[in-house]
Amino acid sequence: MELSEDELVAAIRAVVASESPGVIVGVGDDAAVVEPRAGSTVLTTDLLIEGVHFEHGLISPRDLGAKAISVNVSDIAAMGASPRYALASLALPSEIDAAWVIELYGGMRRACDEYALSLVGGDLSRAERVMISVMVLGEVAHGRAVTREGARAGDAVVVTGTLGAAAAGLALSGAPAQALSAALSAGWARELLDALARPVARVGEGTTLAQCGVTAMMDLSDGLAKDLSRLCIASGVGARVRLAELPIRAAVRAAAAALGLDLLTLAISGGEDYELLATIAPAEVEPARERLRERYGVTLTQIGDILEGGGLVAVDAGGVESPLEARGWDHFAG
Amino acid sequence: MELSEDELVAAIRAVVASESPGVIVGVGDDAAVVEPRAGSTVLTTDLLIEGVHFEHGLISPRDLGAKAISVNVSDIAAMGASPRYALASLALPSEIDAAWVIELYGGMRRACDEYALSLVGGDLSRAERVMISVMVLGEVAHGRAVTREGARAGDAVVVTGTLGAAAAGLALSGAPAQALSAALSAGWARELLDALARPVARVGEGTTLAQCGVTAMMDLSDGLAKDLSRLCIASGVGARVRLAELPIRAAVRAAAAALGLDLLTLAISGGEDYELLATIAPAEVEPARERLRERYGVTLTQIGDILEGGGLVAVDAGGVESPLEARGWDHFAG
Repeated sequence: MELSEDELVAAIRAVVASESPGVIVGVGDDAAVVEPRAGSTVLTTDLLIEGVHFEHGLISPRDLGAKAISVNVSDIAAMGASPRYALASLALPSEIDAAWVIELYGGMRRACDEYALSLVGGDLSRAERVMISVMVLGEVAHGRAVTREGARAGDAVVVTGTLGAAAAGLALSGAPAQALSAALSAGWARELLDALARPVARVGEGTTLAQCGVTAMMDLSDGLAKDLSRLCIASGVGARVRLAELPIRAAVRAAAAALGLDLLTLAISGGEDYELLATIAPAEVEPARERLRERYGVTLTQIGDILEGGGLVAVDAGGVESPLEARGWDHFAG
Repeated sequence: MELSEDELVAAIRAVVASESPGVIVGVGDDAAVVEPRAGSTVLTTDLLIEGVHFEHGLISPRDLGAKAISVNVSDIAAMGASPRYALASLALPSEIDAAWVIELYGGMRRACDEYALSLVGGDLSRAERVMISVMVLGEVAHGRAVTREGARAGDAVVVTGTLGAAAAGLALSGAPAQALSAALSAGWARELLDALARPVARVGEGTTLAQCGVTAMMDLSDGLAKDLSRLCIASGVGARVRLAELPIRAAVRAAAAALGLDLLTLAISGGEDYELLATIAPAEVEPARERLRERYGVTLTQIGDILEGGGLVAVDAGGVESPLEARGWDHFAG
């Protein structure tokens, strides 16, 4: 690091500084001061750690910064709320280039601009490996936040977009150079690597689904099976998933074929989709689908139903039911 | 780690769960939902990283958890605000005991109870070394947050409590076993080790000083010289510090003598005091001192004055002036 901490903070301030509505004191004081609007305050935080969530050479600092914001905004979106302010802390090895750090903040700034939120503070530290901790504050009208707890037996289970693209991108990024090179020439690889490196939080989709009356909602970060299991436990219900209905894009099918991966495993257990998983009365599925398509060009797919009791059941194309294990990402799984 | 991530989250929820005013959705959903009171929202975040901010065996998990909350609350106090909600993220080596983690959250809970704030969320991840990222949201009446920018030439420079105790504690904790053992038998060592491991955020003192009309305020985390320099830069002023006036407690003098440390270096460049540094009109010093003494039994000491221009000047006991270098903690200083 060729800059002192104070010099680095000054450089970061130059990247993130802006006149933002509601920001009274931004980066650089003991704390930021912002003006809340009427409504409830929504708070979330996510860590991104080198060697766990990303590898240093495999993602650009700009994409990494943007992703650190997006994965947090995704949690705000999953509450049906709108992001307003972010804090971003960074731990860095002392040998890292200041330019890399500035690029990272440039990526955060870009993402904040896209989602219309303001980066108002953070912390810096030395560490052995890069670690990013972002907190996002959002706002939602009183009593309108959508939790994981409201799913009722008979509700439809729906997801936005498609499943498994980031997991396919991750598999691809770890593939042998020859396979990767062949995949890139085939065209679908870039799309999957982008799904992994440049996730987009479904902010408008989340508030729209909240308006459409979803009973429970969460974002898919640890894989459909695990996340749906969490939603069901929180709501005290079970769910049936129709495997033939899972929305899987052509690029994921191509990757599964080319790399010898199991397509359903990608779609069910693959993390980092950052799509929205929601439950909704069956009669409301079609109006919600139509609104998402019209407003955002985003698909909404019914993939199953909520059941009384607990546990997850998968139904295959032939109608055969089997238990669906809540496998997915676990930081401490041995 | 003998628990899965979801089991660990459940255990943590049991430790931190409480019915708290203003908390609509606490730990366990995509995001927390809280109700802001009227006023401005104050946001801060601080990292604590193993090998940088603490050593694994040298602080108990309970003290570490409490300290992670206190250092953040200290930043809220430095704005003249009151802490309300916290998010705490934790990155852990997979070989760590779940009991250690639960103790850490127990310490966070204890500190949150002491400062009357609620722990409402966070994130968990694997990492090679322990890393704690805490965010605290506080509240302050509109327009009443105290920044670093308001110091005016002629203002008195004041500090709460005493300086250098945590730095002396740090030096002591790294001293040879024989010196440490002799110090512990002498009685003053425990006080200094506690100053390092169990800092107390000056919340009531901060709001009281704000009511007393301080023109600028910050907490002392990186050493008086460095932090005062930051305050002066933010305010566009300079400062004169009278070295003979620095409040240094007997235990710090004893440690300096026993360990051969420079007393002024401890007081001026030692980090982690978490005392409040403020500027205030000279006529207001005495009333403010009296109020802090009455309400909290805490001393307020005038250590110098704000000057026009920039830079820091130290005046020794003989009245000789010399430049005071803004040395202190820098995460990236080579």
